[in-house]
Amino acid sequence: MLSDELQHKIDFKTKPLGALGFLEQLAHKIGMVQQTTSPILIKPHMVVFAADHGIATAGVSAYPQEVTYQMVMNFLGGGAAINVFCRQNGFDIKIVDAGVNFDFPEGLDLVDKKVRKSSRNILEEPAMTIDEYQLALENGRSVVKEISETGCNIIGFGEMGIGNTSASSLMMSQLFNVPIVDCVGRGTGLNDAQLQNKIDILLKCIEKYPTLETADEIAQTFGGLEIAQMIGAMEEAYRQNMLILIDGFIATVAAASLVKKNPEILDNCIFCHVSDEYAHIKLLELLGQKALLNLNLRVGEGTGCALAYPLIQSAVNFLNEMSSFEDANVSNKN
Amino acid sequence: MLSDELQHKIDFKTKPLGALGFLEQLAHKIGMVQQTTSPILIKPHMVVFAADHGIATAGVSAYPQEVTYQMVMNFLGGGAAINVFCRQNGFDIKIVDAGVNFDFPEGLDLVDKKVRKSSRNILEEPAMTIDEYQLALENGRSVVKEISETGCNIIGFGEMGIGNTSASSLMMSQLFNVPIVDCVGRGTGLNDAQLQNKIDILLKCIEKYPTLETADEIAQTFGGLEIAQMIGAMEEAYRQNMLILIDGFIATVAAASLVKKNPEILDNCIFCHVSDEYAHIKLLELLGQKALLNLNLRVGEGTGCALAYPLIQSAVNFLNEMSSFEDANVSNKN
Repeated sequence: MLSDELQHKIDFKTKPLGALGFLEQLAHKIGMVQQTTSPILIKPHMVVFAADHGIATAGVSAYPQEVTYQMVMNFLGGGAAINVFCRQNGFDIKIVDAGVNFDFPEGLDLVDKKVRKSSRNILEEPAMTIDEYQLALENGRSVVKEISETGCNIIGFGEMGIGNTSASSLMMSQLFNVPIVDCVGRGTGLNDAQLQNKIDILLKCIEKYPTLETADEIAQTFGGLEIAQMIGAMEEAYRQNMLILIDGFIATVAAASLVKKNPEILDNCIFCHVSDEYAHIKLLELLGQKALLNLNLRVGEGTGCALAYPLIQSAVNFLNEMSSFEDANVSNKN
Repeated sequence: MLSDELQHKIDFKTKPLGALGFLEQLAHKIGMVQQTTSPILIKPHMVVFAADHGIATAGVSAYPQEVTYQMVMNFLGGGAAINVFCRQNGFDIKIVDAGVNFDFPEGLDLVDKKVRKSSRNILEEPAMTIDEYQLALENGRSVVKEISETGCNIIGFGEMGIGNTSASSLMMSQLFNVPIVDCVGRGTGLNDAQLQNKIDILLKCIEKYPTLETADEIAQTFGGLEIAQMIGAMEEAYRQNMLILIDGFIATVAAASLVKKNPEILDNCIFCHVSDEYAHIKLLELLGQKALLNLNLRVGEGTGCALAYPLIQSAVNFLNEMSSFEDANVSNKN
């Protein structure tokens, strides 16, 4: 059995039994996904989906909506955090316009998957119509299909969208039947009064849609265009048997939406960090997942994935490169 | 003031205020050590000190003493965990014989700083005489002096020595006046009965030396030759104003010994991980330090330093490479 072979290979490396801790679990997981005792990471990619949110106009964020398109321009210029960390750790990066409220000029290195300019205001109507939601899923899938043709077998997903912690909190609350107040955090940096205002607004949203049932209904009603494209992208990455790097709160909500439909996707997911956004740690607990890093990050953009990548490479490397007790003539335990 | 300039540079990067969490603190710290808002990491080195322990014959470890020299041979052959992670992350590695109970053949790439074959059995006499301890400190300093001539400004220290968690537990207990039972863990993997035996033996050691006062007396009596050389090495690294990467329980005890003499050394120390060895987290608390990684590692060898290094590079990179709000024309907070 491959699982036993992998565990044997890990256990007979020259180190105390179990002493590489989480990296041993990770090596085993990656071996199982790739169905080999000698896994390899090929062409890591980072896809950042950007979109605006109708609800942003209600004052749920510390930053103005224009920051979404400005940050897209910053990504394209190579100056954002995710650019720095992707350059450092060898990621190819793709920036996707999933629904930014801006007319970008021609000729940018931007993947145009715009469904519409911003999702709808959920205080008034669902964030997306069914058709818009389906198109967003399909757009996300198509981005990953294209990337898979490069041979890439490990992919991370990031997001940019002023207002998207609100969308994610609503989704988490409905997916897991958790009171909204336990799903809401300060996002990009709300003060106490602004946080209370955000909670009040989200409570109104919850009350407006009392009959949501499926994960798709929840994502269509409360999600954002970048979140929906991320769901489609993760679904396709799983279909292509890639390793899927999960970033912070928003990306974890997207993953959770898929998990509700198919829990097996968790076999391919690596949860890269616990973010500083209030509800992320609870969400990871609800999914039964432990994360690699805990650095109080709350940038989004996929930064947690890019930062965790060297550790994932280390898990693969020790499995492939370390000597066994036998190879190295080292005595095993008394 | 440089501290304010650094904080301003960090705060005006295109990310929510404080959103890079621990990496921001790290960037600030590195800038302060190097006295610049544009720090750079040069020629990272890893030094692994190996030595045997007289107390190992009393049955305090899950592995036989011969594993110390066998692992030294494994380091020299490139097959240990620390070799894999140093190769991956660009570290030069030096293996130092600080006091291994073995006659190594000539012609190995081993730095010969052997003070004696194994420290003395502390159940009978202090681990080192005063002269042996002073020589060990000096040997450690000389290793770092030589490395500093390469231009290296960031250095990690690892250790290998069957029995050295026992020596470290004794040192921690005396340095911080903590009951020995709160300082003892399973080391390389003791079961419950073996752990109780280890505690009983260490209690006897504590009782035998009731009048230890200074950090040097404690290290000379309870330490090991690799621990003493690590103390000397860290002292010299601080004198050279290098960034000092602190690994797990044993390396943290060595750092703590120096901190008792000169708390300012903490300015240069980066605590790389919380290990799975029972008392490490308590020791970090006593030092008031937070660590970068928490992966349940308990390998030693400096592995936590090598694994954490890409995150340290990321802290430097975001400070040097990210755009500011102004550069990127991104709106700051409402």
